[in-house]
Amino acid sequence: MLSRLRRIQSKKNSAVCVGLDPDPDRMPAPLRDRSPLDATLVFCRSIIDATAEAACAFKLNFAFFEVLGPTGIQMLGEIARIIPDDCLTIADAKRGDIGNSARFYARSIFDEMGFDSCTVAPYMGRDAVEPFLARANTGAFVLTRTSNDGAADLQEACTCSGTPLYLHTARKVAEWSDDAPATGGLVVGATAPEALAEIREACPRLPFLVPGVGAQGGDPAAVMAAAHTDRAPVVVNSSRSILYASDGDDYAEAAADAARSLRDRLRGS
Amino acid sequence: MLSRLRRIQSKKNSAVCVGLDPDPDRMPAPLRDRSPLDATLVFCRSIIDATAEAACAFKLNFAFFEVLGPTGIQMLGEIARIIPDDCLTIADAKRGDIGNSARFYARSIFDEMGFDSCTVAPYMGRDAVEPFLARANTGAFVLTRTSNDGAADLQEACTCSGTPLYLHTARKVAEWSDDAPATGGLVVGATAPEALAEIREACPRLPFLVPGVGAQGGDPAAVMAAAHTDRAPVVVNSSRSILYASDGDDYAEAAADAARSLRDRLRGS
Repeated sequence: MLSRLRRIQSKKNSAVCVGLDPDPDRMPAPLRDRSPLDATLVFCRSIIDATAEAACAFKLNFAFFEVLGPTGIQMLGEIARIIPDDCLTIADAKRGDIGNSARFYARSIFDEMGFDSCTVAPYMGRDAVEPFLARANTGAFVLTRTSNDGAADLQEACTCSGTPLYLHTARKVAEWSDDAPATGGLVVGATAPEALAEIREACPRLPFLVPGVGAQGGDPAAVMAAAHTDRAPVVVNSSRSILYASDGDDYAEAAADAARSLRDRLRGS
Repeated sequence: MLSRLRRIQSKKNSAVCVGLDPDPDRMPAPLRDRSPLDATLVFCRSIIDATAEAACAFKLNFAFFEVLGPTGIQMLGEIARIIPDDCLTIADAKRGDIGNSARFYARSIFDEMGFDSCTVAPYMGRDAVEPFLARANTGAFVLTRTSNDGAADLQEACTCSGTPLYLHTARKVAEWSDDAPATGGLVVGATAPEALAEIREACPRLPFLVPGVGAQGGDPAAVMAAAHTDRAPVVVNSSRSILYASDGDDYAEAAADAARSLRDRLRGS
């Protein structure tokens, strides 16, 4: 996954990941008369068409599709397939289980739905993460230092031999990824720039998926300065500030503008 | 959820949770010619019919259904509905996300599929757990000290003010559950009996979901002695040693025997 991500970013000069969190209560005006399922599919297609040129990745938040029932689950695979080849697909499913459970989750997300990568929760340790690192050409972004308030409860409050839990997790992922067929990566929020720099220093070879810019307030330029390298790129996710840039007829154009604007800010231009 | 669990356990004098992990590669002989979907449904129905009398709960492992695609997801709700009212239903989905994502996962599992409770991952902190504690008559079992080898990587390796991460998590869940409409509970593996006793002492009011007996080797009687109280009951899960007690025509009877045997060992008789 890493070499493909590098190629895509190099070709498009973009670190933007568009987060597809299609909230049924926030559909733009022209889609409000449709059924939730139909509105979600049309909305995602329009956003992808409008923003793919400025993006290097799309992240699908599974919660927003699972709430639509079995047809919503089917839609996850359909949407993964319509995303252009010059964008990485990220299954934001935050799976975390062991043994056959983890292998079946990985099979479902990579083989059946066809995603390039997946977000994974680290609490259960190595045997919960490794099954997601077992397929060539895929990747796993492991929750490390998240962008929410609750990051303080465990990730910052606990330490391991003097190292904060988030940094301990990052180092473990680096260790588990070593020689794995897939690419290990980290989820590190933009809302804690010092942690971002600290984790980058400890893990110079891992790509980062960075949420928390846009609606959550993280600074895009600071993220790139702290963590992006050619060797270990950063993918910066924005969901709401792109999806809901306008709730009118021009929602797709407004999303395209927001994606281009974020791309340019990440370029430092 | 807690008062209902207490009533069920008191009526049936059973702490057995039957874990439904229907592995398509381990179907009993009479089901092997069926399609994976059909075999899974028939297998789960037979196991439920055969074991419900000896069980206080059924736990559905989402991975084994998600791998079957959208129809597998639909089956989760169907199976939750056929489980008798005198057994608790546990969605073993290990969800862990924040904000609308967590609310949509909770809506999907509790409202759409109709489960009584769900397993939840704590790494992201309070805002990932609380949305699962917001509905009356439901419950959330939060991963605390799991039964796998990887528990050593974070849960045991890290500390918070001298307290192991697993105990810190347990105390946080107790705090977050206080005055919540739902019941907070903990997932604590049978493979670490000292941790089980330590967590029970720190959290005298929380029910435990205990995996790790049976195939994983934990001692059922030691679990009950260390952690079960009338006020805060323990639900002991067994999956493989019940589901695969026989792979022949008598698989349902063998499962019933295995469930009764575990029930009796948990009773200390």
